[in-house]
Amino acid sequence: MVSTLKNLAALIIDMDGVLWQDNEPLPGLIEFFELLRKRNIRFVLATNNASRTPEQFQDKLLGMGVSVTREEVLTSSQATALYLKDIAKPGASVFVIGEEGLKQPLREMGFEITTGSSDYVVCGMDRGLSWEKLAQATLNIRAGAKFLGTNPDTTYPTERGIVHGNGAVLAALKTASDVEPIIIGKPEPIMYQQAMLRLGTNKENTIALGDRLETDILGAKRAGIASIIVLTGISTCADLEKVDYQPEWVLEGLPEVIKALQS
Amino acid sequence: MVSTLKNLAALIIDMDGVLWQDNEPLPGLIEFFELLRKRNIRFVLATNNASRTPEQFQDKLLGMGVSVTREEVLTSSQATALYLKDIAKPGASVFVIGEEGLKQPLREMGFEITTGSSDYVVCGMDRGLSWEKLAQATLNIRAGAKFLGTNPDTTYPTERGIVHGNGAVLAALKTASDVEPIIIGKPEPIMYQQAMLRLGTNKENTIALGDRLETDILGAKRAGIASIIVLTGISTCADLEKVDYQPEWVLEGLPEVIKALQS
Repeated sequence: MVSTLKNLAALIIDMDGVLWQDNEPLPGLIEFFELLRKRNIRFVLATNNASRTPEQFQDKLLGMGVSVTREEVLTSSQATALYLKDIAKPGASVFVIGEEGLKQPLREMGFEITTGSSDYVVCGMDRGLSWEKLAQATLNIRAGAKFLGTNPDTTYPTERGIVHGNGAVLAALKTASDVEPIIIGKPEPIMYQQAMLRLGTNKENTIALGDRLETDILGAKRAGIASIIVLTGISTCADLEKVDYQPEWVLEGLPEVIKALQS
Repeated sequence: MVSTLKNLAALIIDMDGVLWQDNEPLPGLIEFFELLRKRNIRFVLATNNASRTPEQFQDKLLGMGVSVTREEVLTSSQATALYLKDIAKPGASVFVIGEEGLKQPLREMGFEITTGSSDYVVCGMDRGLSWEKLAQATLNIRAGAKFLGTNPDTTYPTERGIVHGNGAVLAALKTASDVEPIIIGKPEPIMYQQAMLRLGTNKENTIALGDRLETDILGAKRAGIASIIVLTGISTCADLEKVDYQPEWVLEGLPEVIKALQS
């Protein structure tokens, strides 16, 4: 595990609450990416958000003055498709509760997306969720389809307030089928492991950077890598005292991360 | 509690699995109701099914040759509206996840059914369930609306197979809001208590008749009344050995119930 920020080869970075809040870039955003490019620190932007495509995140960052490649973005939907490619037969059928952000990577991996019975049921955020989709997913899981969830977030922040997240829909399907889903997103370690594989780095020279203790930081612990928490998002200083795991570094925001990387 | 079937004043009877299976009347149905009328044994047909109105159950029975009054039917939706009338201010606003079977009794009790913020959130089976309905329900509960569920059934049998029941949707809302719903349907004792109130009977002269251990029979235990299980529905003889509560009588089906009432 990394013990200083000196010989850092790569960062795995959460986006919402670290790089921006809703649609507002956080202070230091442009300087942060300039430093990463200058110091040749590789990175993957890893998010539990399952509804958007990598291109949509590229566009959002570009609108804030930061250019990243498609390879530098990893969504929990992509991670789910990648995981499924490892365990499933080529061309296996998948029943999807999810939006384009989930369907696109599954199609790219060669899976057949079906509306009937299926080998797999994959569930991510879906603003087109219906009784019928829940019913078909339940039928398929009860008939033996393997059950995967992109991410376990129980809530989802919107402009109207906090609504149900994908973890709530997973709870419904679990209750109806009596089957636990395999969950891909943070705090499971799978996304961090996939990001390191993509970066060609390892636990010894990679650090996680996030704003949420129970996903970003706990996921880093489970993946065996060091982590930095910034306090510009969900978790607060007070929250740190409530959990029995701790990030290696606690920093106010991106300007402090920049300073720490330069020192 | 009743110890013999001799001085019985009233029965509280489950319908699906006792009176019919899907759309097929079970043997002894007509004779059973003839005996109840002849012996002047009052009854309430009490069901966890929240999507249908009492009239729809009257129609179904009429199609099988049995005439019952509207007062002789009690759905978990009616029970929920009745319960709400006891605890809520007159004209309180209710956000409903549910069908006409739930909306009708709520309107009859004078509640205002709203699609926005509300004093109460009531959740029953709704084949028009959507992401938007779950989102609004979550917003309302998180803002302090009291949260009620018509019935806790985790699954629901359909012609296509077993799909998710209302309990699964309650699990989603509970996960998203961190609030436990007040549940009205069996095995909670509320419906049995309301049925006795309607019948003008008490624990000493009323018996429950059902086919499902974990709802009908457990609910009777909790309400403190004796119960008969018939084996024409969900529960089997083998299931009886798996639970630590027991019905007072185990009978094959309606013909055996008729015999027991006559002896």
